[in-house]
Amino acid sequence: MTDNHVRQKARDHLWLHFTNHAALHAGGEVPVVTRAEGAYFWDDKGRRYLDGLSGLFAVNAGHGRPELAEAAARQIRELDYFPIWNSVHPRAAELAEALAERAPGDLNRVFFTNSGSESVETAWKLVKQYFKAIGQPARHKVVSRALAYHGTTHGALSITSLPPVRTPFEPLVPGAHKVPATDIYRGPEHLRDDEEAYGRWAADRIAEAIEFEGPETVAAIFLEPVQNSGGAIPPPKGYLERVREIADRYGVVLVADEVITAFGRIGDYFAINRFGVTPDIITGAKGITSGYIPSGAVIVSDRLFEPFTKKENTFAHGLTFAGHPVAAAVGLENLAIFEREKLNERVRANEDRFRSALSGLLDLPIVGDVRGAGYFWGVVLVKDRATRETFTPAERRRLLDEFLAPALREAGLHARLDERGDPAVLLAPPAIVGEPEFEFIEQVLRSVLAAAWQRL
Amino acid sequence: MTDNHVRQKARDHLWLHFTNHAALHAGGEVPVVTRAEGAYFWDDKGRRYLDGLSGLFAVNAGHGRPELAEAAARQIRELDYFPIWNSVHPRAAELAEALAERAPGDLNRVFFTNSGSESVETAWKLVKQYFKAIGQPARHKVVSRALAYHGTTHGALSITSLPPVRTPFEPLVPGAHKVPATDIYRGPEHLRDDEEAYGRWAADRIAEAIEFEGPETVAAIFLEPVQNSGGAIPPPKGYLERVREIADRYGVVLVADEVITAFGRIGDYFAINRFGVTPDIITGAKGITSGYIPSGAVIVSDRLFEPFTKKENTFAHGLTFAGHPVAAAVGLENLAIFEREKLNERVRANEDRFRSALSGLLDLPIVGDVRGAGYFWGVVLVKDRATRETFTPAERRRLLDEFLAPALREAGLHARLDERGDPAVLLAPPAIVGEPEFEFIEQVLRSVLAAAWQRL
Repeated sequence: MTDNHVRQKARDHLWLHFTNHAALHAGGEVPVVTRAEGAYFWDDKGRRYLDGLSGLFAVNAGHGRPELAEAAARQIRELDYFPIWNSVHPRAAELAEALAERAPGDLNRVFFTNSGSESVETAWKLVKQYFKAIGQPARHKVVSRALAYHGTTHGALSITSLPPVRTPFEPLVPGAHKVPATDIYRGPEHLRDDEEAYGRWAADRIAEAIEFEGPETVAAIFLEPVQNSGGAIPPPKGYLERVREIADRYGVVLVADEVITAFGRIGDYFAINRFGVTPDIITGAKGITSGYIPSGAVIVSDRLFEPFTKKENTFAHGLTFAGHPVAAAVGLENLAIFEREKLNERVRANEDRFRSALSGLLDLPIVGDVRGAGYFWGVVLVKDRATRETFTPAERRRLLDEFLAPALREAGLHARLDERGDPAVLLAPPAIVGEPEFEFIEQVLRSVLAAAWQRL
Repeated sequence: MTDNHVRQKARDHLWLHFTNHAALHAGGEVPVVTRAEGAYFWDDKGRRYLDGLSGLFAVNAGHGRPELAEAAARQIRELDYFPIWNSVHPRAAELAEALAERAPGDLNRVFFTNSGSESVETAWKLVKQYFKAIGQPARHKVVSRALAYHGTTHGALSITSLPPVRTPFEPLVPGAHKVPATDIYRGPEHLRDDEEAYGRWAADRIAEAIEFEGPETVAAIFLEPVQNSGGAIPPPKGYLERVREIADRYGVVLVADEVITAFGRIGDYFAINRFGVTPDIITGAKGITSGYIPSGAVIVSDRLFEPFTKKENTFAHGLTFAGHPVAAAVGLENLAIFEREKLNERVRANEDRFRSALSGLLDLPIVGDVRGAGYFWGVVLVKDRATRETFTPAERRRLLDEFLAPALREAGLHARLDERGDPAVLLAPPAIVGEPEFEFIEQVLRSVLAAAWQRL
């Protein structure tokens, strides 16, 4: 039975996110998602979908976990809510310890938030006050990479490098500067065959931006270990190491934005652990509770916390719901699931099979590139593989909005059509999937992308 | 049994919010809150406290509600998480409808968020894009009132009018201008005996700020119906009506920030309903779920939504966890509790008794003013009642941090010591309390404030 009541209420009262309301307002259909279990969810018509996106890069342990339902209910009965303003409660302290244990280096201090945007806001605020506390008050600027999405609140949005998402809201926070992305597929032609040279070039763009601004004014570099927006872009060989060197050279803080890449997405609690580089701050959210309860966290090095152990420095920042007992209880149980079911090990063991399944699609003329890591992959679409020519705006609209979105839905695969850089199909399924789901994804994409090519 | 493990984990790994870590770092004690029920919570030493602050203005229906534990667990088993980006799920649509039904005027459209800061961020972004969509692209500035707290993310922080909370993070978002608060206790001397004249004067400061900036550049006025920071400051008679007229005169959007005042705090779902003025936007969070699950909402007029029903306008904003199924399920059950137990009616029926109990404290020489509404009151402390002289910084520190904070804890009353304007004890208990709790609060404050006076 389809739920027209829900549709009507949504049409009359709900403002959907990043959604054009024209069609819905004119009576168009909107998918109504009613239940979920494991790697699948169902709509109100009883149709089943493979959740190839973990909801929105969040449900990393899979849907419908009874342990997480029980952890939430148990915590509510014990202590529903209390702030961590001048007081603590057991779950926040326990989750802080558990995150510190899993984070690299001396990243031992956890500031909780409610979302990825709030984590990025917090990290920026933290470095600003840190540098004032250590006598370098002019350091407030940040550098981030083209196409990167770091959130939508004013501070996070300033760091986000997507002009169409920023422009309606200018003026934003001053001092957020941009450098090229690390998409070798679109890198300078003379570097495309030499990943290490390309990685050096890309890292040096950051040094250049710092020099342009004046190193004594720059506080931090924000980057995702594997960049989401633009199509699951992994770091070129040697890139992260060189960025770390540049940060050290200029006395700038390195922030790894792991809102998407943490908690199993790349086969570790933090993706940066797999790349062997230690940032000064990690920002997280989404997978910290497998998305079951809103939560986020900023994990900070002892070095950055040190000035705040002194009477004269109080970090003038706080968020009512942060470190929420229910979020923390679910976060702890989520980590217990990861340990018990060895989900990080599972992702690492399977990532080559996932890669192989998707790389098979490179025989389709519309597929220009397949890249990613762990359980996070982008299938990049082009009009001409040889020249890497992309689509016109009209072709993009026809291809993505009018054909691919409904075709994937029809085929029962939830994936993201990323239109922010090269058009790409993004895949980020829960860590519980394996060979059968890889095959299903490959088959659906093969048939849908072949049909798309026919219609161009 | 006290929990030193929790204290140790907190000391080693947790970054508390708006908290100076020096004492804790040096081995000092921090309260460990372990369980809660009704209007009370307990610490790890088994001591009971009256929750005179609803956690942090959040737990409006009281602690430990088994219905809310069950609602959360049931929703997780059914649909743990799905975004409302180009799709819907039943709970988000149902809660949107329920909020629209309770909001005034044509405020029928709900954009969900995860926190009060995100709600304020969203409202500001929304008016910026709205004015661009209707051909008034220069309107991006906002006006807010001195001492007001509107959140801590960069946009919300820019609107927050507390320099010590803003200064470490400058530069912020340009265009956030300030006008005086509506604290008649500190208003111009010649207006202190004429509330309506004072209200006109205070409202006209907003008109003046708009004129100074140029009306065609101003997008919105943000205000709390009863202002929290500064000590529970209600609107002077006629003030809100006149602000509504000023907003209309200059074509500026009026945003009622009800993060604290909604969901029973003032005896209605939205405080603004009690003052008989209709804003264009309401921002909410905290009490929407009685704080059990992080959530927020922005409720918007049909007029502001209208441009976004057109193909050419998409609100370029979104938040992963917003409209979360678990938050929405708990929000719906929280509203059901309010209806079933008539909690708004209870607050309205009791507010005069609460006021009387606190007004009795005006016979203490340290109490300068008692003001508020519903279940939200501020007891303002002064050094000299006759001259209204306040304390020196050293006296404030001795009075609030060194004496009152531990004394209230010792007496088993959780209240907020607001140091942002005049020192004040803020009270905002759950809607379930009544005469016995009012008496307890009055007795504790009487004894503690009398002792404070002796020590000055």
